[in-house]
Amino acid sequence: MALSTTNKEILEKAVNAIHERIFHAQYPEHPKAYSEEASAKGKEAFDKKIGQPFDELLQENPESYVGEEVSPFTEESLGIQYPAFSVDTFIVRSGRAFSSWKKVDIEQKAEVLMDCLEAITDRFFEIAFATMHTTGQSFMMSFQASGPHSNDRALEAMALAYEELKRFPQKVLWEKPMGKISVKLEKTFKPVPKGISLAIGCSTFPVWNTIPGVFASLMTGNTVIVKPHPKAVLPIAIVVGEMQKVLKAKGYDPLVIQLAADRSQELITKKLAEHPLVKIIDYTGGSQFGEYIETLRKTVFTEKAGVNSAIIDSTDNLESMMQNLAFAVSLYSGQMCTAPQNFFIPKEGIKVGENQVSYDEVVDALKNAIDGLVNHPKMGAGTLGAIQSDMTMKRISSAEDLGARVVLGARKIENPEFLKARVSAPTILEVDAKDVGIYENEMFGPIIMVVKTTDTNESIEVAKDMATRHGAITCAAYSTDPATIEKIEEEMSSAFAPVSLNLTGPIWVNQHAAFSDFHVTGGNPAGNASFTNPDFVNRRFVWVGNRKIAE
Amino acid sequence: MALSTTNKEILEKAVNAIHERIFHAQYPEHPKAYSEEASAKGKEAFDKKIGQPFDELLQENPESYVGEEVSPFTEESLGIQYPAFSVDTFIVRSGRAFSSWKKVDIEQKAEVLMDCLEAITDRFFEIAFATMHTTGQSFMMSFQASGPHSNDRALEAMALAYEELKRFPQKVLWEKPMGKISVKLEKTFKPVPKGISLAIGCSTFPVWNTIPGVFASLMTGNTVIVKPHPKAVLPIAIVVGEMQKVLKAKGYDPLVIQLAADRSQELITKKLAEHPLVKIIDYTGGSQFGEYIETLRKTVFTEKAGVNSAIIDSTDNLESMMQNLAFAVSLYSGQMCTAPQNFFIPKEGIKVGENQVSYDEVVDALKNAIDGLVNHPKMGAGTLGAIQSDMTMKRISSAEDLGARVVLGARKIENPEFLKARVSAPTILEVDAKDVGIYENEMFGPIIMVVKTTDTNESIEVAKDMATRHGAITCAAYSTDPATIEKIEEEMSSAFAPVSLNLTGPIWVNQHAAFSDFHVTGGNPAGNASFTNPDFVNRRFVWVGNRKIAE
Repeated sequence: MALSTTNKEILEKAVNAIHERIFHAQYPEHPKAYSEEASAKGKEAFDKKIGQPFDELLQENPESYVGEEVSPFTEESLGIQYPAFSVDTFIVRSGRAFSSWKKVDIEQKAEVLMDCLEAITDRFFEIAFATMHTTGQSFMMSFQASGPHSNDRALEAMALAYEELKRFPQKVLWEKPMGKISVKLEKTFKPVPKGISLAIGCSTFPVWNTIPGVFASLMTGNTVIVKPHPKAVLPIAIVVGEMQKVLKAKGYDPLVIQLAADRSQELITKKLAEHPLVKIIDYTGGSQFGEYIETLRKTVFTEKAGVNSAIIDSTDNLESMMQNLAFAVSLYSGQMCTAPQNFFIPKEGIKVGENQVSYDEVVDALKNAIDGLVNHPKMGAGTLGAIQSDMTMKRISSAEDLGARVVLGARKIENPEFLKARVSAPTILEVDAKDVGIYENEMFGPIIMVVKTTDTNESIEVAKDMATRHGAITCAAYSTDPATIEKIEEEMSSAFAPVSLNLTGPIWVNQHAAFSDFHVTGGNPAGNASFTNPDFVNRRFVWVGNRKIAE
Repeated sequence: MALSTTNKEILEKAVNAIHERIFHAQYPEHPKAYSEEASAKGKEAFDKKIGQPFDELLQENPESYVGEEVSPFTEESLGIQYPAFSVDTFIVRSGRAFSSWKKVDIEQKAEVLMDCLEAITDRFFEIAFATMHTTGQSFMMSFQASGPHSNDRALEAMALAYEELKRFPQKVLWEKPMGKISVKLEKTFKPVPKGISLAIGCSTFPVWNTIPGVFASLMTGNTVIVKPHPKAVLPIAIVVGEMQKVLKAKGYDPLVIQLAADRSQELITKKLAEHPLVKIIDYTGGSQFGEYIETLRKTVFTEKAGVNSAIIDSTDNLESMMQNLAFAVSLYSGQMCTAPQNFFIPKEGIKVGENQVSYDEVVDALKNAIDGLVNHPKMGAGTLGAIQSDMTMKRISSAEDLGARVVLGARKIENPEFLKARVSAPTILEVDAKDVGIYENEMFGPIIMVVKTTDTNESIEVAKDMATRHGAITCAAYSTDPATIEKIEEEMSSAFAPVSLNLTGPIWVNQHAAFSDFHVTGGNPAGNASFTNPDFVNRRFVWVGNRKIAE
C-alpha cells in the first residue's frame, strides 16, 4: 500500500515547509474555516461525555476506572471515568504491537498516520471543549492549541521523520576497486526503531505538548504509551481513541498507541518510565521530575520549566510595546512555558523615540496596559482563561509574600459566562537586579517581576544568566539601537534562548509556529529537545547497515 | 573568504558519497599512491623524534613534560616528551579560542579544516611509523588506519556537518495572512555551537577513533581538547600540530585544538570531562569508563567494548569461509573493536554445499586456517602486528585458566624484522552455549571462543543476547539458507548489530568503510554514537531562531 495522492501531497508540502520555514498551516486555525454546525456538535458531544465512562478506547479488560478532572471554569468535576490498567498490561500490549508495527514500511506508516490526523480534525471542536474544561484555556485558545496547531506540529514531526527515514538508500551495490579485481558488497541500510515510547503529558497543553513526540515515535516505527496528567485526560483521550480506530480500520494493531490514565494519588509514571522495555520518553512538565527523567539513560526528550525574560531597552512606541507585552503575560494567565516573567528595565528609564522616559513611567505603562487589557469587558476574561491548578492558585495568593515590592496585587476578574471561573489578573512585583533569589525561579502563572537594572548591559547579563542556569524558552526584547540588538542576540544565543525583537500588533513572543519556529532550543535547562529539529526524530531509531558478498 | 574550488569539489563529492553510500575514498589507501620517497622520509622524520621533546605544538609555556610510549615491536621506550599543562590552562585557552571560532562562518571553517586534512596527508608516512611503534599495528595497517582511512572518516564527519549546518535557511521572511492584514516577521536560524569539546583517545587506534569527533566538533563551531592515551600520543600529536599550524597560518587561534598529554599515574581525563565548561565528549575505550562518561549529562559520544559474534550455519566453501574468518581474528591480533570473538557452531555440525560436516571438523578447519595464516612466513607476523598493552599480554597468558577447553593455546610468533616484538597467535577456546559466564565478556586481543550450540536458532538467540546485554559492533554470519539469513538479519537488527554475510576473499567483517558503513550503530551497549550518522554532528550544536517585526 502506497501513500494516497492526497496524503503524499500534504506530506511533501510539510517537508518543504520545514525547509523553507515560511508560513505554512495544513489545518486552518480559525474555527470559521470548519463547518457551521461543528461547534454546536462539538459542544453536544462534550456534554454527553460528562459523568460517563470514556468508552472510545480499544483497550480491553480494564482493571479499574480512574478520573478526577475538574473544570477550571465551573469548578465542577467532569465525572468522566477512564479505563486503567497495570503497567505490565501496557508493556505487554505495546510490545506485542511493536513486533508488527516495526515491520510496517515507511509509506504505509505515513498513510495511516496522515489518516489519524484527518480523523482528529473531525473532533477539533469536541477536543476544544475538553481542553477548555480541563486546562482553563479560553475556547479560542483551546481550539487552536489542541486542534489545528497541535495537528500541524504533529504533521511537522512526522514529516521530518519521513524525510530522515529516507535520508540514506535502502540498498546499494558497493564496489571497491583493488587493482585488477574489485570487491562487491550488497549493502542495505535500515532505520530500526528503538521500541516502546512513553509520552508524559502536562495539565496545561495536554495535546499540543504530547502529539509531536507521539507522531515522531510512531512514524519511526516505535509504539507509544500516552501517560496524561490526571487532571487533563479527555482531550488526549479523544485523540488516542481516534487513532486506535483508524489503526484498527486499516488492519493494524490498535494498541500501537495506548492511553495510560492514572490517579494523582497513585501515579504510574515512574514505573512506566523505569520499565526496561521503555526505550524512549517524551516529557513535558516540572523541572524536578524532568531532571529525574533525564537521568534514566534512555532516549529522552524533555520540556521543563524556564524563566523567560523581557529586555526593555528602547522603543519607538511605548504604548504598542506595552500592549503587546500585556497580552503576552495575560494570555491564558501566563500558564505558558513561553510567557515572559522577568521584565528588565534600566533604572534610568528608556529611550522612546527621541525622548527619555523614566523608569517609573515605564513600569506605569506596563501596569496600565495590563490593567486595561484584563478589565476590558470584551477582552479581559477571554484572554485570561482560568487557572488550571490549585498549585498555581496558591502561588498567586502567596506571591505578595515573596519579598518583592507589589506594583499590582492579585485580583479576581469576573467571567460573565462562567461566574465560578478561577480567573486571576497578573500580579506585578518589582525587585532590584541584585535580588536574584526572588526572581530566579519560575513562577508559573500570572505573576511577573519588574527587575530594575543599572542599564541594559546588566539586563542582558542577568537575562543570559537566568537562561543559562534556569533555562529559557523565549526572550522578548525591545530596542531601537542596532549595537544593542546585536549584543542581545549574541548573548542570548550563547545561552541558546531565541529572541523575539520589537514585537507589536497581533503577534506575541508566546507563539511558536509549526514548520517555522523551533519550540525550545534544547540547549539550556528549559529542555533537552526541540519541536522539531532533526534530533527530535533521529534519536528515535538506529541506522543498521548489513552487507553481503554480491553475486 | 569562500571555499576554494578544489576544497568545495572535494566536500561536495563527500556529501554525495554519504548519501549514495557507494565506494568513495578521497585519500588513496595504498602507500604506492604517494610519492616514492615518502616512506623513507617518513621513517627518517619518525626516527628523529625518538628521545626528543615533541616541539610541533603551538601551546606555549608548558608546566611539565610527560611521555611514556614504548614500541610493541622493539619493547624500547620512544623517549618522546610532550608538553603538559594544567586542566585550567586547557580550559582557559579553549574558551578564548571558542569566543572567536564560534563566529567563523561555515565556508571559512570548511576551508581551513579541508586544508588541515591536506596538511595531515603530507605526514601520512611519519604518522604510520608513529602508529606502528605505539599501537603495535603492522606498517600497512598503521598507514591505512591512521592515514587515509582516518582522513576519510574525518572528511565524512565534517561533510555531514557541513550539510546539516546548511539544512535550514539563515534568514526568511515569514508572512502570516490574518484576514485583511498579515503579520510579517523576519526570522533567522543559526546553528549555535555548544562550547568546548573533549576527545578522549584510545591506545589502539589513536587517530582513526579520534579525528571524526574532532572534525565534527570543529566544523560545528566548537573547540577541541584532545586527550590521547598516554601510551599512544605521537600519531595524534603530529595531527594536532599540523592543524595548529594551518589554523595559525590562516589567521585563526591555533588553540582551537589542543593536545592534552598526561601520565598513566596521574590522568587528567576525569578533571577535563567533569569541567563545567566542557560540553561535548567523544570517547573511545573500555566500557567501565565509558559508562561513567555517559552519566555526566553532557553531550557524549561513546565507543566502548562489545562482544562480537560469528554465526556459522552453512556455507558453500568451508575453506574460503575459514580463511576469511582466520584473517578477521588474526588481523592486528584481534585488537580491534570490530573483530569477532565468539564463534557459534551447532553441535550437529554444518552443511557445506550438499554435505553435512561435523562440529569437530568445522572447529578443526577454523584452527587450521588460523594456524596456516599465522605461521605463513610472509603473512603471519605482518597480519598479527604486535600486542599493544601489558593488560592484553596478561589476558592472553591467563586465557587458558578461564575454564574453557583449550583448542589451541597462546603461542609466540616470530617477527624476523623485530625479534623483540610481542607477537601472539590467537588462542582458541571452546565452551558450551550454557557457559555464558565464560564467553559473555569481551576478551580484547587474540582470544576467541568456539561456542557449541544446539542449533543455529540457539546461535542466533545467544548472539542477540550478547549484543543486547554487552554490545556488539559487528556480526559475521555464514548461511546458504534464505530463511536463516532473514532470521539472523532480523534478530541482530533488533539488537542493533550489523550483519556481514558470507564474506570471503579480500574483505573482512572488521572493516568499516568511510562514506558507506556506519561504524557502531549507537543502539547497543557497544557505544551510543555512530561514525557518521546525523546525530553524530547534529548533537554538537543547537538551532536558535530569532524573530523580529519586518519593516
